[in-house]
Amino acid sequence: MTTDSSGAITALHPEGVATAQAVIPPDGILDLVTQMYGALADPTRIRILYALTTGELCVRDLAVVCGISESAVSHQVRLLRDRRLVRSRRAGTMIFYALDNHHLPVLFREAEFHADHVRQSLADHPYP
Amino acid sequence: MTTDSSGAITALHPEGVATAQAVIPPDGILDLVTQMYGALADPTRIRILYALTTGELCVRDLAVVCGISESAVSHQVRLLRDRRLVRSRRAGTMIFYALDNHHLPVLFREAEFHADHVRQSLADHPYP
Repeated sequence: MTTDSSGAITALHPEGVATAQAVIPPDGILDLVTQMYGALADPTRIRILYALTTGELCVRDLAVVCGISESAVSHQVRLLRDRRLVRSRRAGTMIFYALDNHHLPVLFREAEFHADHVRQSLADHPYP
Repeated sequence: MTTDSSGAITALHPEGVATAQAVIPPDGILDLVTQMYGALADPTRIRILYALTTGELCVRDLAVVCGISESAVSHQVRLLRDRRLVRSRRAGTMIFYALDNHHLPVLFREAEFHADHVRQSLADHPYP
């Protein structure tokens, strides 16, 4: 039997399913997370964000770091600010950009560790 | 002066630029990270991956957890396995899926914390 009387698929391991369902984030959070990953799926934006893990930077310096024009940086940081991945601070005529919060450097570091696993075809760590 | 004699943009804060350039991952890692974020920018795949943070699950149970068909789950886990976000284990006629490595649950948790910041419009934590 793969379905119950209503035609719905039934679980093979109901306890495991209940445990898993309990950790799925609510839709509001899921939407924000999906949007965040969408914003991150771009090498230029990732370069900007890794650069900002070292501290705040102005558009000009971000342009030099990333090897792109200042207007290209402005375009990308605007998108990143809309998604709340960066925030800005004005000082006179200059605008400095910084990461929005301290969860982001942790996330970026784990992404890099994961990529390193993949690149080296490492097995998982031997701890649980 | 915004450019040097070769026409390249010059940095306003050269030390900050050098520090930032040093943390940008090499292109190979950057490509893998970009592909990973692309794979994560989908609410169904995020549901599957959060479900797998509780332990390995078979396709049927993932279908029940996510409220989608088994063939839809199979399609998504194949993509996730290609990107090395999940791995599979065969036991008789059943295939169980698990997260590829232990960096991923850390990454997913930080993503959720970040989204919670955004949803609540929280300022950053008061620690550096």
